[in-house]
Amino acid sequence: MNRGKLYVVSAPSGCGKGTILAEILKNNQNLFYSVSATTRSPREGEIDGVDYYFIAKEEFEREIENSGMLEYAEFCGNFYGTPKKKVIDKLEQGIDVILEIETIGAMKIKKAMNDAILIFILPPSVSELRRRLNKRGTEEHEIIEKRLKEAADEIKRACDYDYIMMNDELGKAIEDFEAILTASKLTNENNKNMIEEVLKNA
Amino acid sequence: MNRGKLYVVSAPSGCGKGTILAEILKNNQNLFYSVSATTRSPREGEIDGVDYYFIAKEEFEREIENSGMLEYAEFCGNFYGTPKKKVIDKLEQGIDVILEIETIGAMKIKKAMNDAILIFILPPSVSELRRRLNKRGTEEHEIIEKRLKEAADEIKRACDYDYIMMNDELGKAIEDFEAILTASKLTNENNKNMIEEVLKNA
Repeated sequence: MNRGKLYVVSAPSGCGKGTILAEILKNNQNLFYSVSATTRSPREGEIDGVDYYFIAKEEFEREIENSGMLEYAEFCGNFYGTPKKKVIDKLEQGIDVILEIETIGAMKIKKAMNDAILIFILPPSVSELRRRLNKRGTEEHEIIEKRLKEAADEIKRACDYDYIMMNDELGKAIEDFEAILTASKLTNENNKNMIEEVLKNA
Repeated sequence: MNRGKLYVVSAPSGCGKGTILAEILKNNQNLFYSVSATTRSPREGEIDGVDYYFIAKEEFEREIENSGMLEYAEFCGNFYGTPKKKVIDKLEQGIDVILEIETIGAMKIKKAMNDAILIFILPPSVSELRRRLNKRGTEEHEIIEKRLKEAADEIKRACDYDYIMMNDELGKAIEDFEAILTASKLTNENNKNMIEEVLKNA
């Protein structure tokens, strides 16, 4: 049995990453979505084990000490990280795993697991991203501009990703994502072992 | 405008390569299928410019001399080759090109054009290939065994291809092929230039 593949997805907020991933997970029942852990308090409507694993700071620090996190980072005094055990278990069971994390965490994963496939989802343009964020109407002008600055910083790091796709039209973006999942398993490194299989009893 | 991508497809006879390619070309009207040239005589039903460009030996030799062939080989006293000009013209027009050639020619192409994408289509097994060839009922036992020997030799060279896929179930094989076409255009090397585009007027 082949080991599962680890996919790491990053995109600035407003790129439609959530919508794309929801569709992909619906169509690929065998893809395991890894939920991150955090020490911040749940916001209204957030569910433990779905949006995040909400854990205490002491527990998070113990996990770090025991190398229990694949990657982690601290933002505004809160920890965010990827619990290692579940990811490794699934991969060893031959199940593909998908992580949704920001670019610095993604780079840490790639360093730790070289065969991870990094996928970056671009917005059509930063000005389009501004339009989308303004349209939501939920945030102040300054906060939107701060997010756009962060988005631009993230986008600059896309150059280190294996695949760079754009969410210009949702249907096309979902197709592109599916194609990456399929084709990344047909590469030479993954399928070289099939050659001997096919030649058996030739 | 991005330069077109060059796809090189190889598969032993009996792998369903023709059926897969026919479907792929039907679904991708912008994919240009490069017809090979040969000095052998047309067989019954073969059409000049469709199955091959049937040209005289002197013309072929002149093309070789003028570096007019991307790759060529001689089998049983006949030349077979890939006319260069049409392929290069299409690529420069941003049109993707697909070549269907044997493994030695494919390696020559990869050497000459490093960004060519090589795709190998495997049969489920050599014994299944034997079954398929026997089922056709058009060839003698010795000829089938000779073909199987050649197939095994070709399959061994699959390890040098970028993508290795299997035609076990036709529908799945067509999907896999489509995914390779799509995903191979979303790789870092192809889309890095999009990053600056997106950041424009940020």
